[in-house]
Amino acid sequence: MIKLYTSPTPNGRKISILLEELNAEYETILVDLSKKEQFKKEFSKLSPTNKIPVIVDTENGQRIFESGAILIYLAQKYNKFLDNENYWEIMQWLILQVAYVGPMLGQAHQYLFYHRGKSKFAEEKTKGYVEHVYSILEKQLMDKEYIVNDYSIADIAIWPWVDRCERHEIKLEDYPNIKRWYDKMSIRPAVIKGYNAV
Amino acid sequence: MIKLYTSPTPNGRKISILLEELNAEYETILVDLSKKEQFKKEFSKLSPTNKIPVIVDTENGQRIFESGAILIYLAQKYNKFLDNENYWEIMQWLILQVAYVGPMLGQAHQYLFYHRGKSKFAEEKTKGYVEHVYSILEKQLMDKEYIVNDYSIADIAIWPWVDRCERHEIKLEDYPNIKRWYDKMSIRPAVIKGYNAV
Repeated sequence: MIKLYTSPTPNGRKISILLEELNAEYETILVDLSKKEQFKKEFSKLSPTNKIPVIVDTENGQRIFESGAILIYLAQKYNKFLDNENYWEIMQWLILQVAYVGPMLGQAHQYLFYHRGKSKFAEEKTKGYVEHVYSILEKQLMDKEYIVNDYSIADIAIWPWVDRCERHEIKLEDYPNIKRWYDKMSIRPAVIKGYNAV
Repeated sequence: MIKLYTSPTPNGRKISILLEELNAEYETILVDLSKKEQFKKEFSKLSPTNKIPVIVDTENGQRIFESGAILIYLAQKYNKFLDNENYWEIMQWLILQVAYVGPMLGQAHQYLFYHRGKSKFAEEKTKGYVEHVYSILEKQLMDKEYIVNDYSIADIAIWPWVDRCERHEIKLEDYPNIKRWYDKMSIRPAVIKGYNAV
């Protein structure tokens, strides 16, 4: 059984969506960021960054932090959404999500949403990153139904971040390929259930 | 043979250091960022983000972008620095590097170094990230010689970023465990050679 320490954020939702897609047995433990529960001593032992999500696989005691590592672990354990034929394509796009899409859109949450008006310079810089991220995804999805070929952990990693497009001051209508992909994923039962897991 | 498209940056150096450690046959192709060569059409075909590093494995034609994915690919191909016993510990710390250590220290390069003085707010915010990153590493290295147990791609991923500590306004003397680890790696012949590969 998978114990998932999480909260309703893009990185947390990646994992609950994948667990739903895998029909895996799991339980959620809410880490309430508004109460700064991620800094509690018990959680610090699980997460050296004090960040969610973290999983513990009760079958073998394995703890995994960092959403990217968790997605790879679960996809390998259940042998789904990271197929051998497309392994390296999926890995590249997954790493691109955790190393660029997530951090840059996360900066947008800071400078364009939570701290709007505090720094014109950082807002402009961040807008440049946001446009770059969306243009990369729009191009990749131009001739593809999903980020790689079949539905994979690359899609699951990216979707919860695009779901926050309002905070990035992005209208999905301006990115028709992303919109088509986003809408298609939005109606998957596992995406809906995983999105609302906590 | 591995063709490595790179430049003398932390993400580029990760790969040339690993290739030297592996004693792999490789050639470097300099992508001169000062001449904006990363935006050339030919390079765009290899890298959807227009970022270095990228490798092409001439044995099988496999192209890999994103430094984190390249490190995993090469470690698996040569079966070194990502051993089975410590696989998930190394993966977690590798992903932590590409998803947090790199992006946050990269923001420090922007706001504390290249654009110093443009935004007091972003500078303060960035200093908070920098302190968090260094405190995580200092704690992890407290009772360890390397980030995980043996020398691994987690160390190789982090070292070239710590090498830029001056840009992060960090004195390594304030982080004695990081300093010990940094100094030990600095004298490895492969680190020296890989650092100066282009």
